[in-house]
Amino acid sequence: MIIAMKQGAAPEAVRNFAAGLEKQGVKIHLSEGASQTVLGLVGDTTGIDEKALKAHHLVEKVIRVQEPYKRANRLFHPEDTRIDIRGGDSGVRHIGAGYLGIIAGPCSVETREQIIGIAQDVKQAGAGFLRGGAFKPRTSPYSFQGLGCEGLDLLMEAKQETGLPIVTELMAIHQLEVFDEVDIIQVGARNMQNFTLLKELGHCRKPILLKRGYAATITELLMAAEYIMAGGNEDIILCERGIRTFDSYTRNTLDLSSIPALKKLSHLPVIVDPSHATGISWMVPAMTKAAIAAGADGVMLEVHNDPENARCDGEQSITPAAFAALMEALRKYASIEGKNIGPAV
Amino acid sequence: MIIAMKQGAAPEAVRNFAAGLEKQGVKIHLSEGASQTVLGLVGDTTGIDEKALKAHHLVEKVIRVQEPYKRANRLFHPEDTRIDIRGGDSGVRHIGAGYLGIIAGPCSVETREQIIGIAQDVKQAGAGFLRGGAFKPRTSPYSFQGLGCEGLDLLMEAKQETGLPIVTELMAIHQLEVFDEVDIIQVGARNMQNFTLLKELGHCRKPILLKRGYAATITELLMAAEYIMAGGNEDIILCERGIRTFDSYTRNTLDLSSIPALKKLSHLPVIVDPSHATGISWMVPAMTKAAIAAGADGVMLEVHNDPENARCDGEQSITPAAFAALMEALRKYASIEGKNIGPAV
Amino acid sequence: MIIAMKQGAAPEAVRNFAAGLEKQGVKIHLSEGASQTVLGLVGDTTGIDEKALKAHHLVEKVIRVQEPYKRANRLFHPEDTRIDIRGGDSGVRHIGAGYLGIIAGPCSVETREQIIGIAQDVKQAGAGFLRGGAFKPRTSPYSFQGLGCEGLDLLMEAKQETGLPIVTELMAIHQLEVFDEVDIIQVGARNMQNFTLLKELGHCRKPILLKRGYAATITELLMAAEYIMAGGNEDIILCERGIRTFDSYTRNTLDLSSIPALKKLSHLPVIVDPSHATGISWMVPAMTKAAIAAGADGVMLEVHNDPENARCDGEQSITPAAFAALMEALRKYASIEGKNIGPAV
Amino acid sequence: MIIAMKQGAAPEAVRNFAAGLEKQGVKIHLSEGASQTVLGLVGDTTGIDEKALKAHHLVEKVIRVQEPYKRANRLFHPEDTRIDIRGGDSGVRHIGAGYLGIIAGPCSVETREQIIGIAQDVKQAGAGFLRGGAFKPRTSPYSFQGLGCEGLDLLMEAKQETGLPIVTELMAIHQLEVFDEVDIIQVGARNMQNFTLLKELGHCRKPILLKRGYAATITELLMAAEYIMAGGNEDIILCERGIRTFDSYTRNTLDLSSIPALKKLSHLPVIVDPSHATGISWMVPAMTKAAIAAGADGVMLEVHNDPENARCDGEQSITPAAFAALMEALRKYASIEGKNIGPAV
Repeated sequence: MIIAMKQGAAPEAVRNFAAGLEKQGVKIHLSEGASQTVLGLVGDTTGIDEKALKAHHLVEKVIRVQEPYKRANRLFHPEDTRIDIRGGDSGVRHIGAGYLGIIAGPCSVETREQIIGIAQDVKQAGAGFLRGGAFKPRTSPYSFQGLGCEGLDLLMEAKQETGLPIVTELMAIHQLEVFDEVDIIQVGARNMQNFTLLKELGHCRKPILLKRGYAATITELLMAAEYIMAGGNEDIILCERGIRTFDSYTRNTLDLSSIPALKKLSHLPVIVDPSHATGISWMVPAMTKAAIAAGADGVMLEVHNDPENARCDGEQSITPAAFAALMEALRKYASIEGKNIGPAV
Repeated sequence: MIIAMKQGAAPEAVRNFAAGLEKQGVKIHLSEGASQTVLGLVGDTTGIDEKALKAHHLVEKVIRVQEPYKRANRLFHPEDTRIDIRGGDSGVRHIGAGYLGIIAGPCSVETREQIIGIAQDVKQAGAGFLRGGAFKPRTSPYSFQGLGCEGLDLLMEAKQETGLPIVTELMAIHQLEVFDEVDIIQVGARNMQNFTLLKELGHCRKPILLKRGYAATITELLMAAEYIMAGGNEDIILCERGIRTFDSYTRNTLDLSSIPALKKLSHLPVIVDPSHATGISWMVPAMTKAAIAAGADGVMLEVHNDPENARCDGEQSITPAAFAALMEALRKYASIEGKNIGPAV
Repeated sequence: MIIAMKQGAAPEAVRNFAAGLEKQGVKIHLSEGASQTVLGLVGDTTGIDEKALKAHHLVEKVIRVQEPYKRANRLFHPEDTRIDIRGGDSGVRHIGAGYLGIIAGPCSVETREQIIGIAQDVKQAGAGFLRGGAFKPRTSPYSFQGLGCEGLDLLMEAKQETGLPIVTELMAIHQLEVFDEVDIIQVGARNMQNFTLLKELGHCRKPILLKRGYAATITELLMAAEYIMAGGNEDIILCERGIRTFDSYTRNTLDLSSIPALKKLSHLPVIVDPSHATGISWMVPAMTKAAIAAGADGVMLEVHNDPENARCDGEQSITPAAFAALMEALRKYASIEGKNIGPAV
Repeated sequence: MIIAMKQGAAPEAVRNFAAGLEKQGVKIHLSEGASQTVLGLVGDTTGIDEKALKAHHLVEKVIRVQEPYKRANRLFHPEDTRIDIRGGDSGVRHIGAGYLGIIAGPCSVETREQIIGIAQDVKQAGAGFLRGGAFKPRTSPYSFQGLGCEGLDLLMEAKQETGLPIVTELMAIHQLEVFDEVDIIQVGARNMQNFTLLKELGHCRKPILLKRGYAATITELLMAAEYIMAGGNEDIILCERGIRTFDSYTRNTLDLSSIPALKKLSHLPVIVDPSHATGISWMVPAMTKAAIAAGADGVMLEVHNDPENARCDGEQSITPAAFAALMEALRKYASIEGKNIGPAV
């Protein structure tokens, strides 16, 4: 971290200020110029509050050189992280470090026939994981809120039937009690900065799929991962799902540049959810291919056997047939990029 | 709600579609044009899922005429809502319906001397409420997270000392146990769509200060209020605190147009937090005056006796002296606008 | 400007790099730390290209301490600039330095009766300037494009009739030939970075009302002013007119924080256009008052005698009666803020 | 277009309103419901001003069913448009309808050696077009503004040397005089709504590469194309180059969803500029591949032989070697997508 002091700041005041900083555990390299003194902070600056520094009357500008996260930082963990997940069968699937995770399924679990049918279809087409919502965050209190525990039970049946590991969203910490058989816990975009929840998940022993808040910066997403990792759980899968911009043609703006950015800054795997990002089913294949081309470690796709009558988000769901066709294309993309797309059963 | 069907949609298919909608409890007025059929939905459409309609292959466009919220809707509650709060003394303060709520205090509670000193200063200058954070949502897990229960105890001492009602943030539902003496519960911007939390607060008997998420639309803010109100708690104070835009001079962009918008759409009081919105203390007086001029029912201001050494957000805190000067100006603004600014003790 | 070099950069390479910079006319203060060297640039850095520096493999971070504009910079011109404008009568009006400029009139000039009628109405209510579009930038090539030269002629008649100075938009440099009698030349938001146009206006001897582009940062707006000022024309009035954000309730988001920001950074007067920003006539009074409370040096308002039949932007125009009522309120606001609102005839 | 009238609007008033609309050349289908009347407008509604309708006191909501552009609209021109360009040699290159246009070269022309060297390098690697700026739009009046006519002359030498057609930016209409030998005229993002310029280019007989303004919606970009096309020039290449959002890791946010959107709405070819969008050279390969995967008809890339010493935008330029490696990958992507990437000489 570099702190440019105000021009004309009294040398003694600056030295006192520097001494105060050293008490926070960093070393200060102080360079007194003709008109301006600059402090270089050496050591672990993650605990130093940039904004507090800017409040000081002697300080002109502050630049953070080192990112404010440690465990999520590629600097201290140069190799890609690979997440290993065992499903209902004996197979282990991987996400990251050359393995693409293909997660597919309906927005919400509706009936036994629906979820098992879709699970069989997406498995057949090559998906590695089944998604489905049991507890649904809905903008309106009057909208369908998911089947809850009954939905979880149906997911478990689908897992037993197909062997596919299950990805589903947790909305509150007390739901952990019923998530025993869930394989990957999803934290939704609206909860990305629910810090109480993140801290609790740090003590959990399951991989977390952490969706980017729709107004979260790259750094904030990584800080949210850091909250979980600081508690001891380092199995985090980051998920880009679109950000909010002035453009209203798509529901959100899918920020595919975040993929190379996140992979440069962090060792964690990064997947993409083009269904929620665009909100438009006919756009999903193009944006899925683009995500893989940009270097994503996988995708999460909404697949529904009857999108028109889906109880939630039908307008962004593709059919099992469209999913199967897309998988054909993805295999070619994976091959070009040297990635393993098959569930390594 | 108006639904324009696709051109050339078969009349019978459209009539079947309409019949399906009627089962959801609305009446349909169907008008068959030369080339296009338009459905008008009459009745309570709050439970109708617009997005699901758009997924249907017969549907071209959907317009919602009636807002998707009921209890927060001015249409069904034409008078301004006034929130009444009793503090540590016998006095009752009001927010809304002509009463300005002036809430002031530090970002976080640090010490007994700090919080009681500031409480006395802001009361002296005319504040009606004391704010102070005990549980702090921080972007970094390595930043100061607030004093927790000890902070709450100190707030209670300040309340006893000055009589000022207390506003403080709740981050998780289990904290409700220790919020007995809190007068207004704040829901932070990052929790505005923590639906589990909102539902629980619907069963609570205290006023809720609901901050707008920094990427939330006007409608989403009102839907978040509706979540709480649907549970039975109708004492909601809405708080504009800046939205995220491309502009980075201020921390967020204070959206003062939201004040007339919210007051047109809803009967709930609307206050403004210029401290978090701008993140810059010297801007706070100008933006506070602008908020009152735009019709706000109050403001929430960060006031700190020693901003440079504040443990949190010092760069946006004004001093007690600056607060007192600002109150002088606000009294003139209140007078022009015919609002009552004094704490009605 | 401060440049943090990469850790481990060879001292000789850094010194060569620094020597290269000195050839661009700045002095370098080089401070070699244990692990990192920091360069401080002293002198006029406006010509130094920050982005070019960042491309260099030895450079870690660059911070600009001094703003990249000179003539628009309050640092070199501490007093507020006051723009003096003489209308069709003998009176001189002022904008800035304690004088509020109230500019009112229709979006576009339509007929003699319309423009002269509105001019008389707004003058009567206390406006200092008449606005009206003759050349109209329209999103669609099929929309009404303004009356052109005929519209200018009608504006001149209104000027003669009422004495009010005229503000109207210039869309292309060749139109300057017919702008002889125009008193303030408006540059629209979409042309804010039409650099060829800005350069030409630098040689013009009339005040320029420069509207902020709807995606322009504070710095970019001031750099656009600098383009004009660099040519010798220093009579610039900045105009905030809303920025584009995710929020779609209002047409744009009026960024009133830009007022204190611009007035801190620059000596130029700042006015606000709440009509275009909100796009909603019933919001205009609230946002006008807020603009004055936030410290604006004036406002530009759309006033139309028959908004429903306006050929352009009727939905955001207030009637002459609403304008007169608003002026009553503004006089009180001006008085509180110690500003002169009357056209100093 | 569908207009929902206010509830309780008097039938006669509505009929008068409808009659007024019919005078604008559309037919009205009026359907009177129990509580609300809805008007359906049939015919060419491109000239109807939606905003003007909304200003009317009888109108509740307006929905546009048909897009407001005609010549750019795929509805009236179902086949993809292919642009044919002849370079300095006898070969014809194509963009669109299955042909990928690969445009490469430096941000600005600096010297004869630079531009001819880069031209030879990119041709060798497989580029179909040479880009290079002679007139440069720069945010600061103190930055390098391009070599102007001398730069154009050097581009012509490079064209003669390599045969590559030339793409370069026009900043003002009077520059057309010296653009005789230019093959594709670029309109920069900041001029996307310089309507005077667009109209003039409608009379020009050269293909126009129209960059999306960084705050322009999809519809606004197509309306800008429509301005040119309405003048008779239908050879437009649309270019996505990033939009402005809250996210500041990249310079802009590359909106790749705009590719399928634009190609659905319009028949015009769509290319992508990942260099300006990201502003970061190491991101360019990933985002270029993603653009092709998303269905783009080509890319425009900044390539510089010495990025560190480039006079403009070095931080986003890739080297000729990186470009050649990227071309290798793109050939595979083109093959998967069934696109022709080679310059069809």
